[in-house]
Amino acid sequence: MYKGGYRGKILRINLTVKTSREEELPLEVARDFIGGAGFGIKYLFDEVKGGTDQLGPDNKLIYSLGPFTGTTIPCASRMAVTSKSPLTNGVGVSLTGGYFPVELKRSGYDVLIVEGKAEKPTYVWIKDGEVRFRDAGKVWGTQTTDCQQIIKDELNDQNVRISCIGPAGENMIRIACIINERRAAGRKGLGAVMGAKNLKAIALRGTGSIDVASKEKLKAAIGEMQKAMKESPLLYPQFAKIGTPMVVDLTCALGIFPTKNWSATGEFAPVDQLGVEAQMTRNVGSMHCYGCPVGCSQLKLAKTGSYAGTLTEGPEYETMYSFGGQTGVDNMDSVIAGDRLADELGLDTISAGVAIGFAMELFEKGILTTEDTGGLQLNFGNHQAMLTLIHMMAFREGIGDLLCDGVKAAAEKIGKGADKYAIHVKGLELPAYDVRGAKAQGLNFATAYTGADHNRGYAFQEIFDIPVPYAADRFSTEKKGELTKWNQDVQMAVCDCPTMCAFILPMALMPISTQNTAALMEAATGLTYTPEEIEKVGERANNLAKAFNVREGFTQADDTLPERLITEPLQSGASKGHLISKDELKLMLDEYYRVRGWDPKTSIPTREKLVELGLGYVADQLGV
Amino acid sequence: MYKGGYRGKILRINLTVKTSREEELPLEVARDFIGGAGFGIKYLFDEVKGGTDQLGPDNKLIYSLGPFTGTTIPCASRMAVTSKSPLTNGVGVSLTGGYFPVELKRSGYDVLIVEGKAEKPTYVWIKDGEVRFRDAGKVWGTQTTDCQQIIKDELNDQNVRISCIGPAGENMIRIACIINERRAAGRKGLGAVMGAKNLKAIALRGTGSIDVASKEKLKAAIGEMQKAMKESPLLYPQFAKIGTPMVVDLTCALGIFPTKNWSATGEFAPVDQLGVEAQMTRNVGSMHCYGCPVGCSQLKLAKTGSYAGTLTEGPEYETMYSFGGQTGVDNMDSVIAGDRLADELGLDTISAGVAIGFAMELFEKGILTTEDTGGLQLNFGNHQAMLTLIHMMAFREGIGDLLCDGVKAAAEKIGKGADKYAIHVKGLELPAYDVRGAKAQGLNFATAYTGADHNRGYAFQEIFDIPVPYAADRFSTEKKGELTKWNQDVQMAVCDCPTMCAFILPMALMPISTQNTAALMEAATGLTYTPEEIEKVGERANNLAKAFNVREGFTQADDTLPERLITEPLQSGASKGHLISKDELKLMLDEYYRVRGWDPKTSIPTREKLVELGLGYVADQLGV
Repeated sequence: MYKGGYRGKILRINLTVKTSREEELPLEVARDFIGGAGFGIKYLFDEVKGGTDQLGPDNKLIYSLGPFTGTTIPCASRMAVTSKSPLTNGVGVSLTGGYFPVELKRSGYDVLIVEGKAEKPTYVWIKDGEVRFRDAGKVWGTQTTDCQQIIKDELNDQNVRISCIGPAGENMIRIACIINERRAAGRKGLGAVMGAKNLKAIALRGTGSIDVASKEKLKAAIGEMQKAMKESPLLYPQFAKIGTPMVVDLTCALGIFPTKNWSATGEFAPVDQLGVEAQMTRNVGSMHCYGCPVGCSQLKLAKTGSYAGTLTEGPEYETMYSFGGQTGVDNMDSVIAGDRLADELGLDTISAGVAIGFAMELFEKGILTTEDTGGLQLNFGNHQAMLTLIHMMAFREGIGDLLCDGVKAAAEKIGKGADKYAIHVKGLELPAYDVRGAKAQGLNFATAYTGADHNRGYAFQEIFDIPVPYAADRFSTEKKGELTKWNQDVQMAVCDCPTMCAFILPMALMPISTQNTAALMEAATGLTYTPEEIEKVGERANNLAKAFNVREGFTQADDTLPERLITEPLQSGASKGHLISKDELKLMLDEYYRVRGWDPKTSIPTREKLVELGLGYVADQLGV
Repeated sequence: MYKGGYRGKILRINLTVKTSREEELPLEVARDFIGGAGFGIKYLFDEVKGGTDQLGPDNKLIYSLGPFTGTTIPCASRMAVTSKSPLTNGVGVSLTGGYFPVELKRSGYDVLIVEGKAEKPTYVWIKDGEVRFRDAGKVWGTQTTDCQQIIKDELNDQNVRISCIGPAGENMIRIACIINERRAAGRKGLGAVMGAKNLKAIALRGTGSIDVASKEKLKAAIGEMQKAMKESPLLYPQFAKIGTPMVVDLTCALGIFPTKNWSATGEFAPVDQLGVEAQMTRNVGSMHCYGCPVGCSQLKLAKTGSYAGTLTEGPEYETMYSFGGQTGVDNMDSVIAGDRLADELGLDTISAGVAIGFAMELFEKGILTTEDTGGLQLNFGNHQAMLTLIHMMAFREGIGDLLCDGVKAAAEKIGKGADKYAIHVKGLELPAYDVRGAKAQGLNFATAYTGADHNRGYAFQEIFDIPVPYAADRFSTEKKGELTKWNQDVQMAVCDCPTMCAFILPMALMPISTQNTAALMEAATGLTYTPEEIEKVGERANNLAKAFNVREGFTQADDTLPERLITEPLQSGASKGHLISKDELKLMLDEYYRVRGWDPKTSIPTREKLVELGLGYVADQLGV
């Protein structure tokens, strides 16, 4: 029996037959997986069979909340979106904030599962649980901001909250994202899943109230959290004022801000152009997600040339890299314009920028020519060409069609050794940490279940020099297997499952982490956990995600890094001379598999481990 | 004592000293001017002295409603915005629909007068009459859609309605408009007045109810109106489905769709590219203003090239001309993109397009060269250059700075005979009717108090072949003076004062016009008028507006047409061989002044006429 936090309900929608039904959320699922990514992985594993076509009607799109969403717990009203990724073919989980998640909670649900495929472009309108399937003719083809406004106008309710795709998702490009308000469930191509389902948007309005098990206990647990936030040396005023792009200066200084398709990290460090001081000349104010006292998201306004007057929420640190360093572009205003354009068209900025930088390197190396690019001079630093390419990718136009399904697929099509320049793991383009100078981060990119992902198992120890659970020398491989497991499991348990903001953990919550999550869980839901049990929730979800990938045919060979990072040492900057050699990677992987309890030869979880985590049925399925 | 319709109150805001106060709206003002443009002209004449700097703190910005706004009367919930025009130096009145007007009514006011100048960028937030002056730092420099969303988010109220400017208004370009939702108070540079006052936006939220004097009488009067609308041969389904751009086909057929800066009307008639059939390939749905059953406004989505995915509300007929025919552009998607860009940056699409076509002709004639244009190849038909110029005008960049204050000012700066190609009257760029084939329309453009304006005294008799009050041969000058007076006065009385939609009159209401307005007035307000008295309201307002212009130094010489229309006959199409010769214009003007009761030598209203209209104090001021 639920005592609060959870609504205890799943809403299942089938687009093929236009039906919806409510189901109970089993209490044991809540207890074992907490929520968010945990729920997403659980239902994805259980309901989407091995070998399912990611863009077919049998793939599912799962929106899942945590028990904290909509409560007074700060920074926690987020949600996970989960599907079989069209980009990696594995588990695709992406978390987003804003205001849509709390509206789903107010609508009465913890989980929304979308199945099937609509016959024609459709949006789903859910008002306090009443589900309507509406013709999306008016918004099909529109950009994400327009789409949201038109739906609000059409429903004659400006308070509706909407999760939608842009043209990129409709065109099923495999790096398409899902947008709610100005926030993105950005990575792994989840927008393409919506597009493949002919689902333009989900519009919500809910008026239900959200209870907790014990207001008194919650006050105490939140107090502990607030104390940690207040004491954080990073959060106020720095992170609140600058947001994630404050990391540009730091990674440039560490020599790990990747530039020019990872060929020039440390050499081309555009801190003067893209660093904090430059950023602040474009900042006009901040935005808050629901229930967040920090407001890290910065509104930036471009000032020069044809970009003048273009506003964006961001660009986040990762986009400073992808549309900045990665493409050799040091023009802040074009990064701002690129960020806005990608959000409007519904492309993941990270994958899009990596794909553009990849094409630029191939162009400079002569592997792609103006014949391939339709005349575009695709040199590093050509910011107009970057913007043109973003648009071409969203519409599968010309060379955009070649690049828009990610660098792995593009390299395969191009041949001519292009794969050497394709910076991805498991098909997911790398985020903004040149792991040649941050080896736990490298091991994490190699092993995270979603592919190279900065929001799964982020090795903040190496970046922010935080000695929790222990200090980490970023150039060393020592104890990086154990550290990576800890990062992955704790972040899953403390952030991704209860949908706590991933930034708050390294910025403030490390000293209290699983202990505080246990306290918050008890206060919000009445479910009691030891800190160790909280960590186990993370381990359980990570193992189940791994099992999904194994069922899809992933092997140990997929736990690797792009060739460049293994063979080319950094040429300059504070990480000069470093790489992650094949031997180093193997060393770290061996340790990682060992502490994980996975078979070191196949990387598959052992039956013992799965049974220990209460996943015996998974062991049966995997045949281990 | 007011019985309904009116709120009876003026809200006066002073930005310099950050004060606001409520004043009574005198009943005699309501009776004599009805509302809307009538109120705007009345308070402008009374409060803004002759010679006032349009961009100085002493100019005022007047928002005025009609007594119908917010009632159940269809198509009438609009408002006028009035100021001394930065473009013409005369009365600047522009009407707009959408949802902001009804919110102002619900806030408790018929009129909002903005005075002074804020020290720094400000927006005004009015919640049920409580006025707050807020820092606009977060939205200064933003586009109009972003501005509105950010203010809603900042005020944490998605139901706020906002009237705002884009960068064009901030930069005080004299063809800047004011935007609410996606609607514009477009013409005469009113956006520059807001910019000059450091006023980015006015945000409203009102919850008051709107009464009428007699619900029963209102039902009957509305019934009469609905009958006329139902019986209209134009309104349903044609106008409702296509909106104003349905006129493209008609004026192309009549040979009066102006193209290439009015040099090629009839010759280049891009009906295949911009006509109704082509339009419908881009239509995705319609939008309604408050209380409008028609929904003439069409949402169009661009489909090709770099324009793909760009949505706009429009382009209206006038924009099909200004960004289409006038610039020689027959690419529908670039017209869509131009429309959206102009709305976002806050430029009047008509004046902007005319200025671009003007520059294109000068470029083709060698009067402007690539040295002047910064390398832009400004040939007719260059749609990319058109979009670039729109942006450059809004930001006063390069040649944009030369063009952004309208063609009259630009021609004066350029010299070299450029004024021959400047298509304006009184500084206002001409709308989309080549009056060489529509002579009452020509006389109207020559005499309307706002300059060449399609929404004042529109000669629908010539365009739609409607024989009310009598049939009109479009090539003849016969009785065009009388017809123009009638059109100007009736449209002022039936549309601009009660803020009835200007499209509904020619589309449906002609047979009932002043009679229906009298019935609606009695029902809504309890004030009784004969149809003749209604027409007098229009005449009064037009005379007062004329008096304002006279006080500013306008003379008979300002009642003219661009040289080209007087000297160059049309070379092809259904109006081939026609022009409005100097003699013809004089003939029509003489008749016009005579029926107006204005001195034919000076064009100044006589004392007798002014006294007859109850404007004796005006005669005193003018010294007649």
